[in-house]
Amino acid sequence: MVPSEIRALFAMVARPEVVSLAGGAPYVSALPLDAVGEMVGDLVAGKGAEVLQYGSAQGDEQLREHICEVMALEGVQASADDVVVTVGAQQALDLITKIFIDPGDVILAEAPSYVGALGTFAAYQADVVHVPLDEGGLIPAALREALSRLDKEGRRVKFIYTVPTFQNPAGVTLTQARRAQILEICAEYDVLIVEDNPYGLLGFDGDPMRALRADDADRVIYLGSFSKTIASGLRVGWVLAPHAVRTKLVLAAESAILCPSNFSQLAVREYLATQPWRAQIKNFRELYRARRDAMLESLDQLMPDGCTWTKPAGGFFVWLTLPEGLDSKAMAPRAIADRVAYVPGTGFYADGGGRQHMRLSYCFPEPHRIREGVRRLAAVVEQEIQLRDTFGGAARSGSTGVHTPGPDVV
Amino acid sequence: MVPSEIRALFAMVARPEVVSLAGGAPYVSALPLDAVGEMVGDLVAGKGAEVLQYGSAQGDEQLREHICEVMALEGVQASADDVVVTVGAQQALDLITKIFIDPGDVILAEAPSYVGALGTFAAYQADVVHVPLDEGGLIPAALREALSRLDKEGRRVKFIYTVPTFQNPAGVTLTQARRAQILEICAEYDVLIVEDNPYGLLGFDGDPMRALRADDADRVIYLGSFSKTIASGLRVGWVLAPHAVRTKLVLAAESAILCPSNFSQLAVREYLATQPWRAQIKNFRELYRARRDAMLESLDQLMPDGCTWTKPAGGFFVWLTLPEGLDSKAMAPRAIADRVAYVPGTGFYADGGGRQHMRLSYCFPEPHRIREGVRRLAAVVEQEIQLRDTFGGAARSGSTGVHTPGPDVV
Repeated sequence: MVPSEIRALFAMVARPEVVSLAGGAPYVSALPLDAVGEMVGDLVAGKGAEVLQYGSAQGDEQLREHICEVMALEGVQASADDVVVTVGAQQALDLITKIFIDPGDVILAEAPSYVGALGTFAAYQADVVHVPLDEGGLIPAALREALSRLDKEGRRVKFIYTVPTFQNPAGVTLTQARRAQILEICAEYDVLIVEDNPYGLLGFDGDPMRALRADDADRVIYLGSFSKTIASGLRVGWVLAPHAVRTKLVLAAESAILCPSNFSQLAVREYLATQPWRAQIKNFRELYRARRDAMLESLDQLMPDGCTWTKPAGGFFVWLTLPEGLDSKAMAPRAIADRVAYVPGTGFYADGGGRQHMRLSYCFPEPHRIREGVRRLAAVVEQEIQLRDTFGGAARSGSTGVHTPGPDVV
Repeated sequence: MVPSEIRALFAMVARPEVVSLAGGAPYVSALPLDAVGEMVGDLVAGKGAEVLQYGSAQGDEQLREHICEVMALEGVQASADDVVVTVGAQQALDLITKIFIDPGDVILAEAPSYVGALGTFAAYQADVVHVPLDEGGLIPAALREALSRLDKEGRRVKFIYTVPTFQNPAGVTLTQARRAQILEICAEYDVLIVEDNPYGLLGFDGDPMRALRADDADRVIYLGSFSKTIASGLRVGWVLAPHAVRTKLVLAAESAILCPSNFSQLAVREYLATQPWRAQIKNFRELYRARRDAMLESLDQLMPDGCTWTKPAGGFFVWLTLPEGLDSKAMAPRAIADRVAYVPGTGFYADGGGRQHMRLSYCFPEPHRIREGVRRLAAVVEQEIQLRDTFGGAARSGSTGVHTPGPDVV
């Protein structure tokens, strides 16, 4: 699509009659807005000289202490001195890529992988090699095979990028057993891991998964974010890195933005210090679980035979696979005309794959809207199947490859 | 200096008994903090679903409209569609450098130039060539000479970076007559201008200067910031660029941070829409004028013969030149031991120059502290002169070149 087509599409998606299962925006209206407003107002009135002033490039020290408490919920032992606060985890991705990647260097990433990361990797001319995942997350044997092959080819793998828990876009989670295997394989090939974990505390069952970083402090660079556990509009994320990397990250951050916003940082610090944030995360979990249930039930009831999808145990996304011969990208404009939007799978592959897949998000629309959206989508897919059966193959879209994410598909 | 020495120095500067004439932090305590707190609190409580959510990569549209109104005060006619909101003007500098600079490309910059820009230019391996300035700003004949020489050498000048108004660090302002000449010369050599203008509305006399961008929309990329006119802790700046550049900037910004903070952006939008921001800028101007006066009067009364300094008509900084044979960098630790801090001139040169100069800022300390700081500084300089006269030359410091800025020297 050319930019004007994309704009037209986005304008249509924004219309209220369209059910968007495309966006990854958290449902921030579930926050106690009056209480947060009062907290922020008092903060500015009482500590304005600090809140409204420049801070350090590494980020507020007390906030970094709180961040260590949050990561401890996933078994991570860390010092605040090794945390760098960033403008969302996206900036952490950008800084890491800037530091590690020279054009042509290889990054391994799950197939599919987060569109925003693929966009950044492309901006630095990294060569992304995908490694398949299944319902248990990244497949260790496939990772070993890829590393072995690249090693034989003499190609340099700078790091493995993974969203191990409630993956974006696939909604799957790396099993505990596989976590140990992945760490072992990476130690064997001496490859760094970039663990991107924005959804880790949004599991629907039991305790949080143990982070990869919890079991290897030297090999894992951990990215976190308050976008999904507090609010995306604050743009406060962080990176926890081995000391030598952390030093480089601070210098790169300083060059890029001087320092992150004290206004945002201290709002998060105050929220973590004074508000019932654990209870609020529990509220979010229950809200998203109800929406996940609405989506999975509707898919079960309504989707035509031949469609399959993942069953997320947390996070925001379901990954749907269409019947053979259908093309999610070609179908997208027809779906929007029928008032339902999703993200075609092609955005999550650096190699032109993903046509048979789509990402469905349940984080933002209310359950009755999710059901209505799935109903419309099922009808569109049904039509496509009939077209395929009649004409022997649905129309395929022309262009391929990574496009930049846009906040609508985070 | 090695990092541990720098940390020790910074720790000393932070001690309350040290008068810091080093930092470029605005005096945000002069804001009506209760009113701003109430405004922000109401904003979050009333529009939390927007304020706390992701926004677009280009920045909030209504805010961009307000930004155009602000720029109109300097004669700039612009469309909100050509504005990109950034994490302070520092991010704009980073994105522009990323887009335009390949390693070894030449950037022309004033001698001295803003330390944060030099740090970013160095990060992208640009080759900075300095062009001298005087009390009337960048010298047109020197610019022409530099462009002609580089042209003959076949070296590619990607852009000229200038802070034309109340320059950081020199405190000088490009005269109106020279502005026309600079634009002419750049047109002749077909070179872009990056006009960085954070202090433009903080003049102590008369109306704001006309921006370079006001007279050449195609050749000038304009950077603005609310750090000095509202609050630095919000990290809201912007770039106004010709359309083709703007498109690239949005893609680069998206890759770097996904989108700027709605929390910060909408606080600025609300402030500009509902608070008496013009009157507040007038308050800031009067406050900074009194501090400028305190500094210039003290310098006149106390500094030893042989020192000279600029007389800023706005902004935050005085640029002081030491007598022959004195070295501001070697002297800095001794000054801090005597409880006064400044930024040595070397930070503002990419080529090791600046030893005979220092930047003195009057933006943050109150007038009686400024006077005390100048008194202490004068005594230190006096001692250095005696050392020089006794031993035939003051100790010179070892290292040279650009260091990263740190928010203390913005």
